[in-house]
Amino acid sequence: MTITAAIVGYGNLGRSAEKLIKATEDFELFGIFSRRDNLDTQTPVYPVADAAQYADQVDVLLLCLGSATDIPEQATGFAEHFTTVDTYDNHSKVPEHYQKMNAAAESSGHLSIISTGWDPGLFSMNRVLGQALFPQPVQNTFWGKGLSQGHSDAVRRVEGVKRGVQYTVPREDAIAEARAGGGEDIVATEAHARVCYIVADETDHDRIREEIVNMPAYFAPYQTTVNFISEEEFERDHLGMPHGGHVITTGDLGGSQQSVEFTLELESNPDFTAAAMVAFARAAARLAEAGETGARSVLEIPLYLLSTQDHDTLLAREV
Amino acid sequence: MTITAAIVGYGNLGRSAEKLIKATEDFELFGIFSRRDNLDTQTPVYPVADAAQYADQVDVLLLCLGSATDIPEQATGFAEHFTTVDTYDNHSKVPEHYQKMNAAAESSGHLSIISTGWDPGLFSMNRVLGQALFPQPVQNTFWGKGLSQGHSDAVRRVEGVKRGVQYTVPREDAIAEARAGGGEDIVATEAHARVCYIVADETDHDRIREEIVNMPAYFAPYQTTVNFISEEEFERDHLGMPHGGHVITTGDLGGSQQSVEFTLELESNPDFTAAAMVAFARAAARLAEAGETGARSVLEIPLYLLSTQDHDTLLAREV
Repeated sequence: MTITAAIVGYGNLGRSAEKLIKATEDFELFGIFSRRDNLDTQTPVYPVADAAQYADQVDVLLLCLGSATDIPEQATGFAEHFTTVDTYDNHSKVPEHYQKMNAAAESSGHLSIISTGWDPGLFSMNRVLGQALFPQPVQNTFWGKGLSQGHSDAVRRVEGVKRGVQYTVPREDAIAEARAGGGEDIVATEAHARVCYIVADETDHDRIREEIVNMPAYFAPYQTTVNFISEEEFERDHLGMPHGGHVITTGDLGGSQQSVEFTLELESNPDFTAAAMVAFARAAARLAEAGETGARSVLEIPLYLLSTQDHDTLLAREV
Repeated sequence: MTITAAIVGYGNLGRSAEKLIKATEDFELFGIFSRRDNLDTQTPVYPVADAAQYADQVDVLLLCLGSATDIPEQATGFAEHFTTVDTYDNHSKVPEHYQKMNAAAESSGHLSIISTGWDPGLFSMNRVLGQALFPQPVQNTFWGKGLSQGHSDAVRRVEGVKRGVQYTVPREDAIAEARAGGGEDIVATEAHARVCYIVADETDHDRIREEIVNMPAYFAPYQTTVNFISEEEFERDHLGMPHGGHVITTGDLGGSQQSVEFTLELESNPDFTAAAMVAFARAAARLAEAGETGARSVLEIPLYLLSTQDHDTLLAREV
């Protein structure tokens, strides 16, 4: 079965999804739906306003849209016409998003898998798996080393900052403590450091550093380091979007201590988010093909549906 | 819902399962089915020959039986009367086991989840997940540091060996190479070392070492170290059953390198195998309650079914 996918949205995630779908054998890319008509791509581009008229030609639509406003405003509209996957990442509003997508997808007879990235997404799956294994699980999630978009935006709003990025870095001692079973005593603000790289005039350095390290909520509770670098160094070392992290669960099983860990080390956050999305798009297309409708979380998808191979082949090779 | 579980078999795994079920809030332990009537336990013990007559009182039966002969000979008989979980670990015969259990469980209206330990089991799940994320995945499984029962049995068969254990130890340089994306060049015999601890008379040491390191298949292709220790040191340091390992998958996503890793560090292999088994027993009881029948692999079980919490609660807390 070749799965015909389309993409809506052409930011970092949309471009990563485009690249990956083209490289994935069991997928073909129908096109990109966009409000813009001047995208720099070889892929066919269609006006997003006309998307519904192509619905019959698309097995699954990847909603590569922002979680702040686009997904809440637009996702249900797409679910009325398409099988969809999204990477909605506003953790506290996932239940609400699930309910809205479920209503839209059920009433129109489509299927939607929500929040399919890595956190939420693969990390959620591993949090649930880890906790299911122990009567009294102790669990920590660590993020990084990784570029934080929100914190990078915050440092760039400080006056005098010409260019700036912020990396979240988990403390190695905290990770070691979690692995050894001491995770209950770890608080997130102490477990992560924040490291900034800033391009600015030298006369502004001291003031900028003070403003950043004292910024409430964003930086004040954290161990924050501010490095000033040249424009050249910034261009050379800080244009990537690395990320990753660890979900560590430990538990005592009546005298024996056990540690379960899921780790991601990602050179490109959007590329990997797209990879998770494409795997769940495969599952979504299969479930839709089987006649299933409504919303699904990643916790509801059996893993064999993510694979290019069928269950019999997986049983013989991977189990 | 309180799940009433029973155990058949009272070796290491059965004892670990007993201990864990008693510590797990949503389970209660009905009893242990055994051929023996003198088990050292407070749990009610019933003759295994009479098991079927208690089937109505048991939601799920944990088959804590050996994979060499007990599971192939007895598992389908239990599936005719009970919802079951097992930890069948003969990888090459998993498809055959699945088919036999499926036939037995379907015809009798029961449900059986097979091969629920950690390898096969949690490692199988992570192999499938890791491979689903990349167009050209590179994947390695490393085992250990861990006690190998089969290899320990083999060293104990060497003449003059009074006591002996064998640990499989993955090479750190091979793990690092896999994480960095170089896993294709790693062969399992080069990626693991074998370390033995032996109690024997000193006059036998040289001969025993030679026999072990040259044992075909078991040791000859591996870097093997044989340490001779005192009875006291053996008693102090080598009666545990630690194990663990890594499933490492890397892939290129069009210019970015990504690494996905699942790691277990286990002080007690049977305790953790029982933990996986109990989590899947929870899923099995729920699926049976919902009227599902037949065999299931771990790849067919949505993760939320493993949890003590319901899907709505998980969505709100973990996703």
